[in-house]
Amino acid sequence: MPPTPQAPIDIDASSFKQKVDLIIYAAHVIPVVPRGVVLSNHAVVVKSSRIVAVLPHDKAQQLFIGIEERHLPNHIVLPGLINLHTHSTMSLLRGLSDDKPLCNWLTEDIWPTEGKFVGPEFVKVGVTLAVAEMLRSGTTCCNEMYYFPDEMCEVLETTGFRGAVGLVVLDFPSPYGSGPADYFCKALPYLEKYASGCHDLITVTMAPHAPYTVSDEHLQTANVLARQHKVRVHMHLHETQRECEDSATQNRNSMSCHQSAYKLRPLANLKRMGLLSEHLICAHMTQLTAGEIEDIAQAGVHVAHCPSSNLKLASGLAPITAMLERGVNVGIGTDSAASNNSLDMFSEMKLAAILAKAETKKCSSVPAAEALQMATLNGARALGLENDIGSIEVGKRADVIAVDCDNIEMLPMYNPINHIVYVAGREHVSDVWINGKHLLANHKLMTIDEKALKMSVRKWAFDISAYRKQHKAEQ
Amino acid sequence: MPPTPQAPIDIDASSFKQKVDLIIYAAHVIPVVPRGVVLSNHAVVVKSSRIVAVLPHDKAQQLFIGIEERHLPNHIVLPGLINLHTHSTMSLLRGLSDDKPLCNWLTEDIWPTEGKFVGPEFVKVGVTLAVAEMLRSGTTCCNEMYYFPDEMCEVLETTGFRGAVGLVVLDFPSPYGSGPADYFCKALPYLEKYASGCHDLITVTMAPHAPYTVSDEHLQTANVLARQHKVRVHMHLHETQRECEDSATQNRNSMSCHQSAYKLRPLANLKRMGLLSEHLICAHMTQLTAGEIEDIAQAGVHVAHCPSSNLKLASGLAPITAMLERGVNVGIGTDSAASNNSLDMFSEMKLAAILAKAETKKCSSVPAAEALQMATLNGARALGLENDIGSIEVGKRADVIAVDCDNIEMLPMYNPINHIVYVAGREHVSDVWINGKHLLANHKLMTIDEKALKMSVRKWAFDISAYRKQHKAEQ
Repeated sequence: MPPTPQAPIDIDASSFKQKVDLIIYAAHVIPVVPRGVVLSNHAVVVKSSRIVAVLPHDKAQQLFIGIEERHLPNHIVLPGLINLHTHSTMSLLRGLSDDKPLCNWLTEDIWPTEGKFVGPEFVKVGVTLAVAEMLRSGTTCCNEMYYFPDEMCEVLETTGFRGAVGLVVLDFPSPYGSGPADYFCKALPYLEKYASGCHDLITVTMAPHAPYTVSDEHLQTANVLARQHKVRVHMHLHETQRECEDSATQNRNSMSCHQSAYKLRPLANLKRMGLLSEHLICAHMTQLTAGEIEDIAQAGVHVAHCPSSNLKLASGLAPITAMLERGVNVGIGTDSAASNNSLDMFSEMKLAAILAKAETKKCSSVPAAEALQMATLNGARALGLENDIGSIEVGKRADVIAVDCDNIEMLPMYNPINHIVYVAGREHVSDVWINGKHLLANHKLMTIDEKALKMSVRKWAFDISAYRKQHKAEQ
Repeated sequence: MPPTPQAPIDIDASSFKQKVDLIIYAAHVIPVVPRGVVLSNHAVVVKSSRIVAVLPHDKAQQLFIGIEERHLPNHIVLPGLINLHTHSTMSLLRGLSDDKPLCNWLTEDIWPTEGKFVGPEFVKVGVTLAVAEMLRSGTTCCNEMYYFPDEMCEVLETTGFRGAVGLVVLDFPSPYGSGPADYFCKALPYLEKYASGCHDLITVTMAPHAPYTVSDEHLQTANVLARQHKVRVHMHLHETQRECEDSATQNRNSMSCHQSAYKLRPLANLKRMGLLSEHLICAHMTQLTAGEIEDIAQAGVHVAHCPSSNLKLASGLAPITAMLERGVNVGIGTDSAASNNSLDMFSEMKLAAILAKAETKKCSSVPAAEALQMATLNGARALGLENDIGSIEVGKRADVIAVDCDNIEMLPMYNPINHIVYVAGREHVSDVWINGKHLLANHKLMTIDEKALKMSVRKWAFDISAYRKQHKAEQ
């Protein structure tokens, strides 16, 4: 039994023990750094939200005493997964529309429904639903892009979830803003409040949606603001062949509010404007020439690979092996639950690993340890948070998850790292800590009222269904 | 509360009610036939292992009284999934070796370990593990290929699981037989016992492993035996580019015991020998020319599509959309847990649907309803069991599963069919019936001692790990 702070302590045996907040005794710890290492019978020791030691069970018992001690004899403990590209609010639109191309999906189903329903309360419920799903599936941080950052930040604070909140810029009005000037204006207070890195959960990014929805001028403004406040730029890029072709030929389509005056592929246009840098995170990147891979590698651009979304929307296969070989930092994202239709980083990690093998025709492409690094440390690097999260190392924040291996689906186990990538499912995540705070305890959400959340979600879904029925009837 | 058989029944109200074995009251029933239909607030009524009615709740209550009645107000009820290609025993080798090409994976890791360990007891434990995983994830029937059919059949009988047991033929000895004559000899009693279709769970197939491990002569013998006993032939075919090229050039490699004297691609060689017919089930089929698709379409050959295994082993993308458009019957298989590394038909079904879109660059390729049909009815057709399983229709066996939708991952829900394919996970399967028998009840296995099974699996894994360590030390 774990001693409580008030418990009598044997003076001889424990007088040299350091009191800490939390000790997690695990069957296996996968620290991610160094790559490929499994520490069996090790403990992770946490104090003041940070990891202070990773050491064998017996050493941990000798040196530390925890206010909370958790014994996980059948579990693998690893860093929390980092979802490098999502739109959490859109979980309320999960499965609203499927089996349609990106353009029709957006213009016929997603944008009209968003136009009708999106507002502060919608965002609050949607983000809470997404955070609940992410916590239950071992994700501890997301790189976010959606409207109403106030509500997003509020949910992150109340649930204890870590997020990089994208401050959206578009050339057209939305339920959140009247146009570019309004978006920039609204972004400023968040840049000032969260850019300094002093908040222990929330960071921000400038998030111009995509080259076909944001003009060159506003892309540049977004970049300047990001540079001034030392935050990342997060945008969709080279998601589809059509996006690249339309940009190169100045062809406008039903999705595009904007085409650059330069007949260039979007990446070349960003390069021309000086936007390619280690401060840029590009989601999707399915369409890349060898020269473009060279450009992003040299500039240090980060890539958020979204394999499920890219397959489902027929966008293509991102050449991640070529990028990784060239040294590009590639993380993994789920995209939104409206296009995936899940926020399940376990299935995304497996898919990234096996799809890479098909793409290169080499079974050794993206081996398990590399896929796991993509879903953790590479995500942290992309967000500029590699000193705080992405691995289990002394000094980092205690963003840690536990995967229960004592079940039919995970037995037998010969290699814990491969098992995490190729075998484990989201349902095997039993515990999640962020900043050392226990947010999922034995599968139970500790900071979210699941019952109340489900009721709110059902209410929104009922209204959306009714509107869509009426809308279809009117057509 | 459901009335028990002895409960007093109100004579006026119930005298016209027919007594049945089971009534499942579901929020939604997806019958699969007709395609795309969702029956909300419907019940499935079962008597003597078969479905006797599918009708609205109120009608069911008026007409039937069940010995067992199950109320599933948050559930989707659908036909059990059919895993059209697997090697159940190999679940004991789950994750033994990853990130290697098929040839090295087989010759360096799988075959040596099998040579050392495979025997009746190994098969019994492996198959029980696989059946436990399949039941827990909504699969009710598997198309099997492995040694020791006695033990396989015994496990199917004791667990109540449905299977098509492949009677393996190889040109080389194995722990099960000394060579082709022995395999054929051993197959005969199973052909006689199970071929007639009278067993209510077990069917058999002739299972010559692959064209590179079975000579033309023995392929023909297998086919003749299958025809005589009116059973299917189940084999690996066109799994890799190398298999096709080596066959066409008579190049022998470390995997091949055999190359046909004819310089033909394997499918052309099978065609030459008259093996292409509606009695043939081919697993994988990643390498197909337009002419070959035409050949299998005309012959009525069935295909078991194994997307995860094909990606992970870098075998390629099977052109399933072209096959489906040409009228080829394509089902879905997981392959073994040694190459997948799961027997999860939910993730396989989603992957089949989204990978098809990437392959054709069309989002409308393999829409959700088609993917679901592939994982159910198409599997039944391939096995010649379409009159018994694969859909929820009156007269068919009650192989039925329930998916609980009242959870964070599945909310909200706008379209139950799309949700089953793109959203549901194996962990949401709460109940499984085969032949109307309740084998998984509220997530609990009813015919398998899970604790004892886990202990046996751990024992085998311990021995295998020790052997592999020693084997590596000796090298």
